[in-house]
Amino acid sequence: MRPPVFTPVTNAIRALAMDAVQKANSGHPGAPMGMAEIAEVLWNRHLKHNPGNPHWVNRDRFVLSNGHGSMLIYALLHLTGYDLTIDDLKAFRQLHSKTPGHPELGYTEGVETTTGPLGQGLSNAVGMALAEKLLAKQFNRPEFDVVDHFTYVFLGDGCLMEGISHEVCSLAGTWGLSKLIAFYDDNGISIDGHVEGWFTDKTPERFAAYGWQVIRSVDGHHPDAIEAAIREAKSDTVRPTLICCKTVIGLGAPNKKGTHDVHGAPLGDVEIQAAREYIGWNHPPFEIPAEVYAAWDAKERGAKWESDWDRLFSKYSAAYPELAAEFERRIKGDLPADWSARVDAELSRVNDTAATIATRKASQNCIEVYAAILPELLGGSADLTGSNLTNWSGSKAIARDGTGNYIHYGVREFGMAAIINGLALHGGFIPYGGTFLMFSEYARNALRMAALMKLRSIFVFTHDSIGLGEDGPTHQPVEQTATLRLVPNMDVWRPCDTSETVVAWACAIERKNGPTCLALSRQNLPFVPRDITKLAKIRRGGYVLSESKGAARAVIIATGSEVDLALRAQAALSEQDIAVRVVSMPCTSLFDRQDAAYRAAVLPVGVVRVAIEAGVSDGWYKYVGLHGAVVGLDRFGESAPASALFKEFGFTVENVVSVIKSVL
Amino acid sequence: MRPPVFTPVTNAIRALAMDAVQKANSGHPGAPMGMAEIAEVLWNRHLKHNPGNPHWVNRDRFVLSNGHGSMLIYALLHLTGYDLTIDDLKAFRQLHSKTPGHPELGYTEGVETTTGPLGQGLSNAVGMALAEKLLAKQFNRPEFDVVDHFTYVFLGDGCLMEGISHEVCSLAGTWGLSKLIAFYDDNGISIDGHVEGWFTDKTPERFAAYGWQVIRSVDGHHPDAIEAAIREAKSDTVRPTLICCKTVIGLGAPNKKGTHDVHGAPLGDVEIQAAREYIGWNHPPFEIPAEVYAAWDAKERGAKWESDWDRLFSKYSAAYPELAAEFERRIKGDLPADWSARVDAELSRVNDTAATIATRKASQNCIEVYAAILPELLGGSADLTGSNLTNWSGSKAIARDGTGNYIHYGVREFGMAAIINGLALHGGFIPYGGTFLMFSEYARNALRMAALMKLRSIFVFTHDSIGLGEDGPTHQPVEQTATLRLVPNMDVWRPCDTSETVVAWACAIERKNGPTCLALSRQNLPFVPRDITKLAKIRRGGYVLSESKGAARAVIIATGSEVDLALRAQAALSEQDIAVRVVSMPCTSLFDRQDAAYRAAVLPVGVVRVAIEAGVSDGWYKYVGLHGAVVGLDRFGESAPASALFKEFGFTVENVVSVIKSVL
Repeated sequence: MRPPVFTPVTNAIRALAMDAVQKANSGHPGAPMGMAEIAEVLWNRHLKHNPGNPHWVNRDRFVLSNGHGSMLIYALLHLTGYDLTIDDLKAFRQLHSKTPGHPELGYTEGVETTTGPLGQGLSNAVGMALAEKLLAKQFNRPEFDVVDHFTYVFLGDGCLMEGISHEVCSLAGTWGLSKLIAFYDDNGISIDGHVEGWFTDKTPERFAAYGWQVIRSVDGHHPDAIEAAIREAKSDTVRPTLICCKTVIGLGAPNKKGTHDVHGAPLGDVEIQAAREYIGWNHPPFEIPAEVYAAWDAKERGAKWESDWDRLFSKYSAAYPELAAEFERRIKGDLPADWSARVDAELSRVNDTAATIATRKASQNCIEVYAAILPELLGGSADLTGSNLTNWSGSKAIARDGTGNYIHYGVREFGMAAIINGLALHGGFIPYGGTFLMFSEYARNALRMAALMKLRSIFVFTHDSIGLGEDGPTHQPVEQTATLRLVPNMDVWRPCDTSETVVAWACAIERKNGPTCLALSRQNLPFVPRDITKLAKIRRGGYVLSESKGAARAVIIATGSEVDLALRAQAALSEQDIAVRVVSMPCTSLFDRQDAAYRAAVLPVGVVRVAIEAGVSDGWYKYVGLHGAVVGLDRFGESAPASALFKEFGFTVENVVSVIKSVL
Repeated sequence: MRPPVFTPVTNAIRALAMDAVQKANSGHPGAPMGMAEIAEVLWNRHLKHNPGNPHWVNRDRFVLSNGHGSMLIYALLHLTGYDLTIDDLKAFRQLHSKTPGHPELGYTEGVETTTGPLGQGLSNAVGMALAEKLLAKQFNRPEFDVVDHFTYVFLGDGCLMEGISHEVCSLAGTWGLSKLIAFYDDNGISIDGHVEGWFTDKTPERFAAYGWQVIRSVDGHHPDAIEAAIREAKSDTVRPTLICCKTVIGLGAPNKKGTHDVHGAPLGDVEIQAAREYIGWNHPPFEIPAEVYAAWDAKERGAKWESDWDRLFSKYSAAYPELAAEFERRIKGDLPADWSARVDAELSRVNDTAATIATRKASQNCIEVYAAILPELLGGSADLTGSNLTNWSGSKAIARDGTGNYIHYGVREFGMAAIINGLALHGGFIPYGGTFLMFSEYARNALRMAALMKLRSIFVFTHDSIGLGEDGPTHQPVEQTATLRLVPNMDVWRPCDTSETVVAWACAIERKNGPTCLALSRQNLPFVPRDITKLAKIRRGGYVLSESKGAARAVIIATGSEVDLALRAQAALSEQDIAVRVVSMPCTSLFDRQDAAYRAAVLPVGVVRVAIEAGVSDGWYKYVGLHGAVVGLDRFGESAPASALFKEFGFTVENVVSVIKSVL
């Protein structure tokens, strides 16, 4: 590598990173300092964005997958003219600032996704690039490339070591996402030190095996080399590109560069002073000369890019008015005007049909109806299409030419969930994907990220209990529904029949500020008839499904497959002149969001409660208290036919009746 | 590929797989039928095992990572002479049988690990092979290779698509696990159909990039080709080997072979009859001719292998009596005779020292003491050694020569956890590994597998709450401790100071029938003095830490960093003449396992309870009921210094006092 040339423009990034981390006494200066030249070339010469309107639809997407280097993106946003002041940078990592420790969607204009959990930013970027490709195919017309942007991602060794990078980069290669360009910050350092003891992959060969274009051994501190690599990346219209940049972590800090000492700690006053001299930067902390701002400011060219696009779109609207209107609707995430009517019609239809089917099948029936009117529904499964029943009659697998509306993710649950988040982040789609509920665990942190980012991601989790039978304890969810309910801002539905499934899907689609998990049965569940008032109450998450004959001496709360058991226990108790009410609670978080009066009407104070769910019991004490009881399953399942298992574990009318009588 | 030759020996596998799946009306015949020739060559000609004593210490390990093909291993175990009868095979997938839907450790002699969740069997195998290598280095002496065996693993496309395969195969290459031999069942089919739409990796190139020997394009139905590949694999003493076997899924079923129809469903009577004719097998279902049993039976040569080894070990014992005794102790998993005394001494020491330090630091102090007397403690971290404080003064990174006792796993949480499980399964080690508590989510299903398999795996999860501060919500566990507690058979400790940390570690090490998670603070936690009686009670999981002055009007239950807050609230309430008791509950599951009288003594009936924990509140209603309260955090955190966050979210004496008064 040639000796680095420190320019005022790249020095500004280095200085801001050093100063902000030092002031916060917390953070990671190393990556921003090591990637300053790459950032300068990409942001200052290539990135098509508009600081004046960070949400401009056709902007290039930029993802900092190595999110611990957050000061890099904050410096770039500040310098290019986004709404992020020097005072914001001075408040780095402080409460309610716009500059949290890791980039957070919604906190900072211009941050496209929340990163920090390694590998997921890269995966979101794959989802964004896929969204761009599919959307372009659906909406572009000759001479009207209304969707036409790149997705750039910075990543480090950590992202590449994580398993999810394998899943999503394999898919990016298969899908031919040529407008995805990844910059690998190959600095040879991770937190434990020099990586050669634990990371000896030949990364270029690995990515070539995925079908990527790989540009090797780029000097990450040499602007011309970076420029050439970006041009080469853009010129490949068939494959995604990995640009391997050799860099020195913390470059600019003369004594600490190239060591993990610059990774997760401030440099210290002495080293910062030495660095200022070393790079030739004699401005006080947080002071950037006007000429640097002038060199970086992207507001004018951003506004130009956007207005050019506006003109294009306006002509497009004239030529293709319906398409343009539909594009705008999809980008806004609005549902068609007749959406509610369609949902009501479907609910009425299934109530009339009164089918006893598995809720996974009920879910497929919903998809059939909803997808037909919502082309933005982009489905898929992690290699369990025929089990999850996530496809519909109009499903067509996506192809390298950008056609299709159904994604075979392969056996890649974590990658699927993080790509779904990327699709949701991009806009234009309402993505959903399926796997067995058990393997929600493989995707666990991506589900959390969807909740944290308030994304409209829909996760279809079938085979939701011991009711799946013979596959045994490795496949039988016992604690998964309960643990998913504990994720803040996650709605988990466990419907008991076709009607509740219709409402669950409708609520998931309507929910603009958070993800939904649908926990669905493998086995058939009996249909429960309801009048129109009761049908409307499903939307409240919990409601009286079957009132007691006379004053209730107990309330049974049940979900999913156990609702039928509750109803049968109610009938058996009734024969013994014991009146109990049955409450169906398909979505506990939604019930919790109802007002106190409604909740008290459903669960009256002073009436003992018994919850039934074929899963761990702990979470139900919130509703039944110390004086109620839970018929649950606080152990792993077994391999056997479902009916044998429900009996073995006490999910019988006899046992439920006995438990209820024990608490009266 | 040459036309297959169906022999009686391989036909027996095919017939048993078809018949058992058909009888159960559930299961996967395709993989067993497609891998019959590979299985025959490996099991019948190479595998060094002893059906008469499946636990013989120096046996080759065999892992069926594509666990859905469970009938393959059951057929092999049956045919080679393990304690698995034809009646057991007839009970395939039935309640309490020895032949559950997926291979389950502890259900079936000869099954080395529970598989089904894809990618994890392969990862366990990497752990087993690493254990063999390290143990051999520690115990073998010239002319005494007392530890000397291979680890074989069968895997399919699914395992290779999963991200975890990337993590662990990268490490296997770096570590040079030359006695790990993997057979890739390359049949081009996964559940969604032909894989070319979603799996286009050049797998050989990928594994070459990891530093593996790759043997390409082996005809998986040609015994000589398989034999040659195994010999080549064994002859490489530097690299692990991937043998890529081209196979036809369901080979033997003339109409369904090569399609995903043979994957997850019985073939049906018609196709089974056709298959019997096609492969030339005219025996009734579940009938195996005596000559096939004779050809497969491995009891005699197994007994010979073991007795040869016994003779070797007996000479070794004579030459190295101490080493031999230590080897036997470690394989048994026994602790040294003075273990309890050493723990008591350490507990006494920290109680005298009264240090206010972070529990992650307290944990490191424990490791320093315990690892010095337990060479079987095999530590590591997923690239967070300096943060998790999982190393000690005697830590030495493992190297390709088999030396070392500390594993730098790199940024590979899931792989780490599954490798830890493999180390525990092999025996000779008590493995532990660290990451941030948040990233337990990346490893989630491996933690569950440890609990399901009752493994002595220890997971060190630091930075356990908003107390980590500036890294923000992506890194701040809110629901993780609560969700880990919901895993059956998982013990989760959240100690409040040095003394509780000493006991937590001791219990984790002593626990032979299940894994432990240690949730540890980043920040300092005040030391709490205790007398000897109170110190002894820590082992009960929950105990009265500070008795009320006078009859308690409320009980505060707290864990970890919130125990100090509880004590301060107790003092503040005392000044207002409100007497409350403080219960520390570092391990709820252990408390739940205490007898009712003890539990009632700690939490007296009729006294209102308030739980305090900086995490989601739902789980605590099990203890506080509907009339108590929880001071918890039912939302995501924020990026800010810890002290600002605790204040922001109500973890203050003022708020706790107010909540307690509200429920009195």
